[in-house]
Amino acid sequence: MKVTVGGRARNFRTVAFDASNNSVLLIEQRLLPHRFEIIATKNFQETAHAITNMIVRGAGAIGATAAYGLAQGVRAFRGSDLEKFTQHITKVYHVLKSARPTAVDPVNAMNAMLRVMGSGQSVAEKQALALAAAEEFANEDVRHCRAIGEFGAHLIQQNVRVLTHCNAGWLAFVDVGSATAPVYAAQARGVKFHVFCDETRPRSQGATLTAWELAQQKISHEIIADNAAGHLMQRGEIDLVIVGSDRTLGRTGEVANKIGTYTKAVLAKRHKIPFYVAIPLSTIDWHLKSGLEIPIEERHGDEVLGAWGIEGGSKSSAEGSKLGRRTFVRVANPTSRARNPGFDVTPAELITGIITPVGIFKPRDLWKKRVALGFSEK
Amino acid sequence: MKVTVGGRARNFRTVAFDASNNSVLLIEQRLLPHRFEIIATKNFQETAHAITNMIVRGAGAIGATAAYGLAQGVRAFRGSDLEKFTQHITKVYHVLKSARPTAVDPVNAMNAMLRVMGSGQSVAEKQALALAAAEEFANEDVRHCRAIGEFGAHLIQQNVRVLTHCNAGWLAFVDVGSATAPVYAAQARGVKFHVFCDETRPRSQGATLTAWELAQQKISHEIIADNAAGHLMQRGEIDLVIVGSDRTLGRTGEVANKIGTYTKAVLAKRHKIPFYVAIPLSTIDWHLKSGLEIPIEERHGDEVLGAWGIEGGSKSSAEGSKLGRRTFVRVANPTSRARNPGFDVTPAELITGIITPVGIFKPRDLWKKRVALGFSEK
Repeated sequence: MKVTVGGRARNFRTVAFDASNNSVLLIEQRLLPHRFEIIATKNFQETAHAITNMIVRGAGAIGATAAYGLAQGVRAFRGSDLEKFTQHITKVYHVLKSARPTAVDPVNAMNAMLRVMGSGQSVAEKQALALAAAEEFANEDVRHCRAIGEFGAHLIQQNVRVLTHCNAGWLAFVDVGSATAPVYAAQARGVKFHVFCDETRPRSQGATLTAWELAQQKISHEIIADNAAGHLMQRGEIDLVIVGSDRTLGRTGEVANKIGTYTKAVLAKRHKIPFYVAIPLSTIDWHLKSGLEIPIEERHGDEVLGAWGIEGGSKSSAEGSKLGRRTFVRVANPTSRARNPGFDVTPAELITGIITPVGIFKPRDLWKKRVALGFSEK
Repeated sequence: MKVTVGGRARNFRTVAFDASNNSVLLIEQRLLPHRFEIIATKNFQETAHAITNMIVRGAGAIGATAAYGLAQGVRAFRGSDLEKFTQHITKVYHVLKSARPTAVDPVNAMNAMLRVMGSGQSVAEKQALALAAAEEFANEDVRHCRAIGEFGAHLIQQNVRVLTHCNAGWLAFVDVGSATAPVYAAQARGVKFHVFCDETRPRSQGATLTAWELAQQKISHEIIADNAAGHLMQRGEIDLVIVGSDRTLGRTGEVANKIGTYTKAVLAKRHKIPFYVAIPLSTIDWHLKSGLEIPIEERHGDEVLGAWGIEGGSKSSAEGSKLGRRTFVRVANPTSRARNPGFDVTPAELITGIITPVGIFKPRDLWKKRVALGFSEK
């Protein structure tokens, strides 16, 4: 997507590869929204660190980062001894896999690459195949997000006011994003609309990442406190809700997503406002039989008890030249503690439709359409 | 209520009067929850400033502050000339009235005092009557809050988990508070329970003031992000909701309160959790015929775009001795703007009961019971 750097709008992906320098290029997301910076990792260890340290986050984005990291590691091998090469690949694979041990996308991406590399006869051939496979993984992520955008764009008619929660934007994927994809596709079609970004406490991804994305694309938007959406719905100021999903149950249509999503779905139902969830197929879980089985991560209370921001940053420039330092302030009473569930589960009855790269489905129809949605019995 | 100062628990009111020094004593609320300090105003002008500058806030608390401020001003008059004395009273009255021009409580309190002072024959008599009337206003506020507590306490059974939103605590009144009154009354009866405090973005009064109040009374509590209550209700972890109200419509039972209250009422209804609103009678509006007529203040966007807190304050002491400085950090994307409605309106159908100093009523029964609730045709 477009980012304005030095007064000029240029296109960037969240994750890309510089073949001539054998470097993975990443948007340093920990500096956003206050500073935009691309970092280039020198080797696969640095790429693994970037995943671990949250320089890059989001299922699609870390999948592509691991894929490029594997290609980077594989391409750094010198020599033609296939046995040593295989040992080297195994080492690279495990370093990248253990960068974020609970994530499935890096493992899926790298396993697919290993299968492709199997058809190469020499080290050089396998190295070329690795890079091609990594590029293909990243490009496929982009194609899928674009397809979500095409299916979802018709929901966004002229003057529609959309609410979104958290960040399921291009920064969480290689490009375009999931919940944001229909918005960007509608913009490309010349539709005028407005987006309300839920702040999304405690980590404020809506106020930081989603608002930054929309500002870069020059899309009309406003940030609201998570408390305000109900009032805006009541006054008829929201027409449509689109959110992403961390895990969608293929058998029940339940959606696990950032804490607060459920609340917005309950409010939307009361006000008869369509509530859509945009997802890549990789987030569908075909195994669990109930949303109650989804483990809800209890995160550190400090996230709730304070906030990260920039001192005196109110009037600062988008590129960060005049910014103060990033700091954590304790907001809450110093002797109190917090509960901090990271996710919640929204039942199918509250969801109007699931927007996927292969079409929009009623949440309870996912299982019926499971073959089209990539389910396999394995 | 109790506050622990220097390791010792002592009782304080939010507003009190030191007759020997002719001073109004106020908890400096802008320093909370990070530091507890009582300020003593030297004259009625300083008292008016304390109202204007939000050293004291909350309907009951500023009513009592204006009452004491009027007594303070009146008592500072030297001489026995009744005509000059009357001119002086008029001046004091207007300075205090214009300290927070939209508030009705200071005006109501001072008008009642002027009526009482009318029966005095001399300057000295009127001065004595002024102080007695101010004390009576403050004591009545406390009695009303205690009555709310007695009626509401039976809702809080052993092991109940209560959710509250924003701060309708003793800091907003002279003592005890409205939404917190049942909680304090239940504690006095030896009941064990737990309170979840909604953070209440954007100004975080739940995380700062309510959590501080509960911590001082040693009541078991946790702060949650405003996004988390829906999830906790879904998992059966909340049994009861009690909030305050800025304005309650006597004709319809609608309740205007801090932004986010409506959302909690919608969630409570879905989960069949009792939702109560605790109010002093002075907040009942007998005139408006619909909640849509209530003007919703649109506050400054900066409140949403950042947060006030203490640098490095995570492990600091309750009395503030080791605290960093209070600072504002910009959290949100620097080029984005915010919508910031300050209040919302909850319809009667979502409210289980209105807890008042004269009993608990169904919201739609207020009009029927209007005489008992202090309605007058004037």
